[in-house]
Order: sequence, then C-alpha cells, then structure tokens
Amino acid sequence: MNEASEKSYTLEGIKNLPKEFRRNLINGLSGFKSLCLAGTADASGHTNLSLISSVIHVGANPPYMGMLMRPHTVPRHTLENILDQKYFTLNHIREEFMEQAHQASAKYPREESEFDAVGLTPEYSQIHSAPYVLEAYVKIGLQLVETHTLQCNETILVVGEIIELILPSAAVGEDGFIDLEACGTITVAGLDAYYHAQAISRLPYARAKKKA
Amino acid sequence: MNEASEKSYTLEGIKNLPKEFRRNLINGLSGFKSLCLAGTADASGHTNLSLISSVIHVGANPPYMGMLMRPHTVPRHTLENILDQKYFTLNHIREEFMEQAHQASAKYPREESEFDAVGLTPEYSQIHSAPYVLEAYVKIGLQLVETHTLQCNETILVVGEIIELILPSAAVGEDGFIDLEACGTITVAGLDAYYHAQAISRLPYARAKKKA
Repeated sequence: MNEASEKSYTLEGIKNLPKEFRRNLINGLSGFKSLCLAGTADASGHTNLSLISSVIHVGANPPYMGMLMRPHTVPRHTLENILDQKYFTLNHIREEFMEQAHQASAKYPREESEFDAVGLTPEYSQIHSAPYVLEAYVKIGLQLVETHTLQCNETILVVGEIIELILPSAAVGEDGFIDLEACGTITVAGLDAYYHAQAISRLPYARAKKKA
Repeated sequence: MNEASEKSYTLEGIKNLPKEFRRNLINGLSGFKSLCLAGTADASGHTNLSLISSVIHVGANPPYMGMLMRPHTVPRHTLENILDQKYFTLNHIREEFMEQAHQASAKYPREESEFDAVGLTPEYSQIHSAPYVLEAYVKIGLQLVETHTLQCNETILVVGEIIELILPSAAVGEDGFIDLEACGTITVAGLDAYYHAQAISRLPYARAKKKA
C-alpha cells in the first residue's frame, strides 16, 4: 500500500458503479464491525434470529445499546417482534457457530424459526421473553426504549436498555474490561468477511498535554 | 471459558456497579467496533479531529454512513462544525498512528487543533471543506443529511452521504470488496483496547435451504 496508488470516487462515480461492486465497496467503509445475532419472539413464542452488524454503544449509565435495521429486507420479523414484545437479545458470535450465524441472514418464511433452520439453540431467562443463543458466551437482554426512522432511506435505529447481561466471569477484568478475545467474539468487514481480533494494546486515558 | 463460570447482571446490578467498572463493562458489550478519526473545520478553517467508535453503515445506494456522538463530552466541536459547515471526513485508523488517534480523544480547547496537538496532518480535496487525515489509507468525505437526538440520553446520530472516497487501489477487489487488513485498518473494544483483525474467511451469500 502506498500513496501513489490511491483511487478516488466521487458520489457520481459511486452511483454509476455496478450494483454488487458498490454494495461490497460501501459496506466495507464502516471498517471492522460489531457482529451479533439478535434474538426475538412473537406473542405466540415463535422465535426469530437476525444477523446484525450495526450494533453501537449508546450509553453506560443508564446502559443503552442501539442497532440499525433495514425493515424492507431481512430483519423484518425481528423488528416486528421488538415493536410488539419490547424485548430483544444481542448475542456475540464465535467462530464455532459463525456459519450458522451467517446462514441466519437468509430469508426464511415467518413460520420457520431461524434457530431451527440454522441449528442454534434458544435459551430463556427469568427476566424477559426474548430468546438468547445458548451457544453464545456474551448474551445481552434489552428492552426497547425508542426508535428513529431515518428519512434518507427508511432504515430504523432501535435503541434498547440493557436489562440483563450474561457472560463468562473469567472474561471480566477487575476494572470491568471484557476480554472479547477470550470470549471468542469475532468481527466482520463488508457483508461476508469474518475476522478474529488480535490485541495490540490498551492505551491509558488521554489527557491534553500542556504546551511547553 | 465454560458455561459453569457464567456471571449475570440485572439492570439494578449494573446501576449499582462502581462507575469506572460499569463504564468499561458496558462499553465492551458492543464487541469489536469500527474505529475512525472524524475530521471537520469551522467557518474560519480551524480544524478539529475526534476519535469515533460508533460508525455504522446506513446504506449503499445512495451511499450513507452514520455515527453516534456524545455532544456533552469530547466531540462537541466536531458536532458544531458538522452542523455549521455540513461536511465531515471519516478516516480509518492504522497502528502506525494509533497513539496519536487515541490522544485525539483528550479534551483540547477550541483554539487548538487536534491535528497539531497530536501530530497528524490535515489534507484537503477539491470536493468539500473538511480535512482528511493524510496518514490514513481509507478516507471518506461526507455531507450531512440528517441528525436524530436520542431521547434516552441526548446522544446524537449524525447521518452523512458519502460524496468522496479515497483508498488504495490495490485494496479494492474485483467485486468491490475492500481488504481492510491490507489497508492496516484496526479495531477497538471497550474504551481503550486496540486490535488487528485476522481473516477467518468470506462466506457465500446465504439462501434459505429447502426442507427435505
């Protein structure tokens, strides 16, 4: 990689790219992304799983997380379940069930649970009605607090409050830091490229340096 | 890691944790995150840089990206510049300038540019007025399209349309896939832990399997 071989695109150039090329290119720009399976259930207890790569931290106190959903494509049942039942889970994906998780991004009919279709196991707690993924090590239970529909393309930001958190005790450090490598949590780039993370280092809290 | 050593937290339990522990714990739940420096300038051309770990893909056509900002803490100047000038850049962070990027999260007075303070170089294009980070390999220029203020904690989702994209030509595959490992793009977990990504594999587009 060197400066001499830079390529630039304008908005017009991006719009004129072949559809699949543009889809891969633009999806790659958000870097390495948080990768979760979102678990939900409808009023009858029918479960649903969606692969989500748009999870963001929203706040620590109170504890909130958000995710952006494309209601017109795959995660429609998930969104409907969240709006109806108010609960959802986020489950970190490990390499051991990466292929099943990826398969959950396929379009299944409503009557078929992605848990059954891809071979993952729903797990319930006493706190709420949404299913966790038993095979996951980091499991987060959330209650819907608000949604925002983006005017530009009708995607929907879903924000939930963390009402339950289940993770391996050995992965939580004395200062609360979660060792995600030890949890087997993986990450994704673009639409379909999965990665392990390998620690470089933790850096100390940054303070502005006084000028000499 | 095994099931026997799981630890759970309720919302009440999370609220009662020591502040720093909770901050680290909850920030870790969003997994490995997109890590960018956001570059902006005010009307007089004074530049500003913010470290952002909440970038999400919003859409490919038209091409949109979003980021969540905490206006009451560090990135206030960045948000003001975006609202005033309508342009911002997102620049992927490489290990070579990871420490400078982390230092950009410190609170600098308005009159001091984080570019100068941390030792990175602003770079301009013909398309818009926001500064890129010269040292970055993946550089994205965006124009503000909308903002949403979250009711739960007043964080602000900023959505921009990609109006320029600069990256190493060798990193873009025939199908538009960006090899982020080759670009040196790193990722972050929690508030301060930086990671390389190591490819596992790309998986084919998932289709629902017909039942036998």
